[in-house]
Amino acid sequence: MAKYMDVHYGMKDITADQLAAAHRADLEIEAEEHVHFERAWADPTSGRVYCLSEAPSAEAVQRIHERAGHPASEIYPVPISV
Amino acid sequence: MAKYMDVHYGMKDITADQLAAAHRADLEIEAEEHVHFERAWADPTSGRVYCLSEAPSAEAVQRIHERAGHPASEIYPVPISV
Repeated sequence: MAKYMDVHYGMKDITADQLAAAHRADLEIEAEEHVHFERAWADPTSGRVYCLSEAPSAEAVQRIHERAGHPASEIYPVPISV
Repeated sequence: MAKYMDVHYGMKDITADQLAAAHRADLEIEAEEHVHFERAWADPTSGRVYCLSEAPSAEAVQRIHERAGHPASEIYPVPISV
């Protein structure tokens, strides 16, 4: 298992309710890929959403995000953190 | 006070010790701008580092990062989170 940061572009004007609903949609199916989405942060002005997860691979992260209806634009492993 | 996510590019091959030292350099002076750097995540392969902070403005975040020797490439407010 490793940590990943993924970024979604194009989420301009996302609301707190929409972010919560998107996160719930991930949580509902994440176990099927052994992924856990820990946190997400959104900037409604630039349309960027950052998601922090723990997962077996970037592909597993993307499969959950795709099935939940919001594929990530970019996914990076973040093996180092403070 | 608001939350910000900033991104540094060009940090290829950053080590855990280097990330910890960079974070400490921010923490030592952050109070002077009423900023607090909460977490940072690094991808040594792509050279990206993501920093989560609480601060009065993006400019305050950048002033601390610049004085600590590692200006951010981009800084985004993230008023919504889960």
